[in-house]
Parts: sequence; structure tokens; C-alpha cells
Amino acid sequence: MRVTAECIPCYLKQAISTMRAAGIDDSRQQRLLEALFPVIAGLDDSKTPAENSSLVLFELYRLLGPDDPFREAKVRSNDLARTFLPALEKVIAFNADPLLTALKVSVAGNVIDMGIMPGFDVSASIQQELGRDFELCDEQPFRELLEKGGPLVVIGDNSGEIFFDFLLLAQLRSFTDDITYIVKGGPILNDATLEDAEAAGIPLLAKVVTTGSNYLGVIPELCSGALRSLIGDANLVLAKGQANYETLEGTSFAGDKTFFLLRAKCPVVAGHLGVRLGSSVLIRNRVNL
Amino acid sequence: MRVTAECIPCYLKQAISTMRAAGIDDSRQQRLLEALFPVIAGLDDSKTPAENSSLVLFELYRLLGPDDPFREAKVRSNDLARTFLPALEKVIAFNADPLLTALKVSVAGNVIDMGIMPGFDVSASIQQELGRDFELCDEQPFRELLEKGGPLVVIGDNSGEIFFDFLLLAQLRSFTDDITYIVKGGPILNDATLEDAEAAGIPLLAKVVTTGSNYLGVIPELCSGALRSLIGDANLVLAKGQANYETLEGTSFAGDKTFFLLRAKCPVVAGHLGVRLGSSVLIRNRVNL
Repeated sequence: MRVTAECIPCYLKQAISTMRAAGIDDSRQQRLLEALFPVIAGLDDSKTPAENSSLVLFELYRLLGPDDPFREAKVRSNDLARTFLPALEKVIAFNADPLLTALKVSVAGNVIDMGIMPGFDVSASIQQELGRDFELCDEQPFRELLEKGGPLVVIGDNSGEIFFDFLLLAQLRSFTDDITYIVKGGPILNDATLEDAEAAGIPLLAKVVTTGSNYLGVIPELCSGALRSLIGDANLVLAKGQANYETLEGTSFAGDKTFFLLRAKCPVVAGHLGVRLGSSVLIRNRVNL
Repeated sequence: MRVTAECIPCYLKQAISTMRAAGIDDSRQQRLLEALFPVIAGLDDSKTPAENSSLVLFELYRLLGPDDPFREAKVRSNDLARTFLPALEKVIAFNADPLLTALKVSVAGNVIDMGIMPGFDVSASIQQELGRDFELCDEQPFRELLEKGGPLVVIGDNSGEIFFDFLLLAQLRSFTDDITYIVKGGPILNDATLEDAEAAGIPLLAKVVTTGSNYLGVIPELCSGALRSLIGDANLVLAKGQANYETLEGTSFAGDKTFFLLRAKCPVVAGHLGVRLGSSVLIRNRVNL
């Protein structure tokens, strides 16, 4: 999907979230935002919000220096998410439909987003997701592809959330033992990296591979040959979160074997999906012709 | 109050609201936002959010040309607000405390804000305000000053809302017949101007005076001698909405005879007031020493 005018204030909001996480004082925040204006003015509006937002954040990270601003916040969100595991394991195991419940739990974790929703509440999110249906739900074709087995790719999103994905992976393992879980190649916002995957025990259930960069989402043109083959050879791809939707929806690279699992956290994505802001969806990719 | 980093994305959001009202397509919106970056980078962060936002909007209005982008939307919001009057008159008249009820009705109208809250719902706002208390309420000192009579100044905020202020003015007339109602001297967002005051019948109950400019809020340094005297000679000033709070709070110009009546619609103002986002307050000005 392409950027809209509304994405521009949102780049700045994500930059503010980043600077807050880095402990930058307000006056310096204002100066740093202004330093991002030339980058924003130079963006290509035929690109996706996630790609453009990445370019703005790369410039901010360059200005802030080498430390990961979200390092501590990511550890805290992992620690927080971990506390929910024993209860959520039981919620999934004792539900009549453990797979659907694990999908809901996984999307509940998608609220852990320090870029555009820094005031998230994980506990409320879990209760909300377990108590409602997906607003759009392509569960039937998802199950059909899943039951065929074969290589499965899950594209992760945030730290913290990755612990909830562990519970989903445990369910997916009943269908195939060839699962690859994709994380970012470097720090960007609170997106999960190799470190987070290890903290969450993902390697016990899946092979972990990185996107090879720290761009938000997965940008087809920037994927390595290995990553292209991995996604190309998969029988089923499950991509989590807004950024993966922004970069992959409509592409023939993702194809109709890709399903997006996300909460619509901004009006631009909600509008593109045709759902209410704040609702969650499991939808199959429709390739743009 | 001073601007914060969070105000910067909000300038752009207000610009987007304005361009939407003017029917500008998305791609041109993006170009126009970028054209505002130099103005934003040149702002003085010791000024208030309302003053800085005004300067950004002035540049946008210059780029958009002479038409008022909100002309039709303002007429629509006046027409909408007018439909609530018969019911609200009765709600106020039959309440045990008509003055407090009129204050709540007036602040319910403050939701009609096309700059930062374009998705407002007037009916829901009325129900909400009538069903709750002000989160901060300096009602007692307000009543004490009011009962002394003498010149009273009400500083208005938005079109539409101004119809609800008419009902409040009708209550205030029991205490004094010397009331002045202040509107903007020219169009800015959906702020009320002379035309709106006339549409709402304000001249039947109060003398109507303009700020002499189309800056958001009332900026002490930019007030004419006549406006300075008017506010200086008043026994009581009631200033509505966020922008008037941003420009007047803490000033000796407003003094401790000024009360602010508003809904905290953004995290910066809510944080400055120390209240929850979305709550409403009636508070006395505290002069910064």
C-alpha cells in the first residue's frame, strides 16, 4: 500500500516515541524532528508507509548515535509478555479451538507497539481479543493450506509479542515441522530481532532467519536471494503486524499463500483494509493485477 | 503554556484537516505539508502551541488561496448545533442547577473541533458531559465572582459550539447585563467569527468583539488597546477551549479573574492540566510568578 498525507505526522510521532525511549529532552526532540524534515520531503510517495518510515527512522538513529533506543524497553516488554505465558497456555489448550485461540493470542500481542501505540495495555488486549471475533477472517483457506503441511514461514513483528507467537508456533507444529520464523536484521523501533527470538525460545520450534536489514516490514525488492527462496518455496506464509501488511499486501512476491494477522492500529491501514480502527483481522493476500 | 515536540506532528494533522475541508487531493496534501516544513523549523519554542500552530496555518492558507476552507463545514456545524437547542434549553431549565448544566452544555459543544478532532459526535458529547462531573472544578470561586456582577467577558472558541454558548450566556445574564463575547477577527480552522456570532444570536445577549486577528486563542502581546482594556476592566473572564488556555493560562494579563472551560483534547494540554485525556474542566487561572 502507498503512503498518504496522514503518514507524515505519524513518521514524526514514531520519531518522538523513539527519542522518548532514548531519554532525549523535549527541546532537543524538537530540534531533531526539524532535522528530519529534509528526509521526509525527499521521500517517494509511491513507496509504502513502512519503507518511508524506515528511512526517516534511519536518519534519526544516525543522529542519535549507535545505541538502540529501545534496548531496555524491549527487554521489559519481553519480561512482561513472559508473565502471561502460563495462563495463555492453558487458555489455548482448554479451548475447543486451540488454533483460532492461538491466532487471537498472537494478535493480542501485536498491541505491544512502541512506535505508534506507546500506551499499550497487554492484559486488556488479551481480554479484548479473546472476547471478540476477527473483523475479517479467512480462517477456512488458512486451515486448508495449513493442513497440507510443508514449509511454513511466519514473519514476526514486535518484541514482547514474539512470546505470544511462540504459543502460536506450538500449535502450528501439529501441522508441519518445517517452520521458519523471520525477525529483523537490526534494531528498529521495538521490532523483534534474533536476540528477542532467542529470549522467547523460538529456535526450539522454528528455524530463525532475519530479513537481513532493519527496514520495517519485508520489502520484496530488498530481500536477499535466500529470503526470496524461503518465501517462494513456502506453502503458507503468515505475516504479522501492520508493517508487513504495508510492504507485502498486493505483491505477487507474497502471493495468495500469504495471510496477514494484525490489529489495525492506524486510520490509514484500517481504511485500506476497510475495517474499524482497532479491529483485528486474519486475511489472505490478494495479488494486485 | 509552551510547545512540546508532540505539537509538531499536530500542526501537520491540523493542516491535513484543513486541506481535507478544502477538498485537496492526497498527493497535493503531501506536497503542501512538505512546503510547511521551513515554517515549522523556524518556529519559536518559547511560544504557545496555539500561536505556533497559527503561523503554520497562515502559511497553509496563503498557499491554498483566499477561500476559507471551512466555510461550508462551519455552516453545517452551526446548522447541526441549532437542532439541539430546543432540547438543551429544557435540560438546562429543568435542572436543579441550571448554571452548572449550562456550563456542561457549553463544554459539550467544545467537541465541535475540526482541527484536532474532525470525527466529533455532538450528541454523544452532550450525553457524556451531562452524565459526568468536571475533572477539575473551580465552580465555587467562579460563582462568587459572578455574583458580584459587573463586566463579564466570554472568549468563544468554535462555530457550532457558539450555539451552546448562547444558552450559557442566557444563564449568565441573570448575574449581569454587561457581557462581551469575543470571536476571531478572521477565519482560522472552524473558529467562530462575527458571522457565526450573528448566526447564533449572540448579539441578542452580549456585545460581540473580535480579537482583531485570526490567530488561534488570544495572544496578550497581540491584543489591541481596546481589547486589553476590555479584558482588564472585566470582573470575570470565561475563556473556552484549548487554544485560549494555551495562550492565556499563567499570564497576568488574564489574571486570577479568568476561568478556563474546556475539554482536554490532546495529550499535551491534558498533561499540562494534570487530567485524563478527554476530560473536561472549569479551572481558575493561576498567574505564573
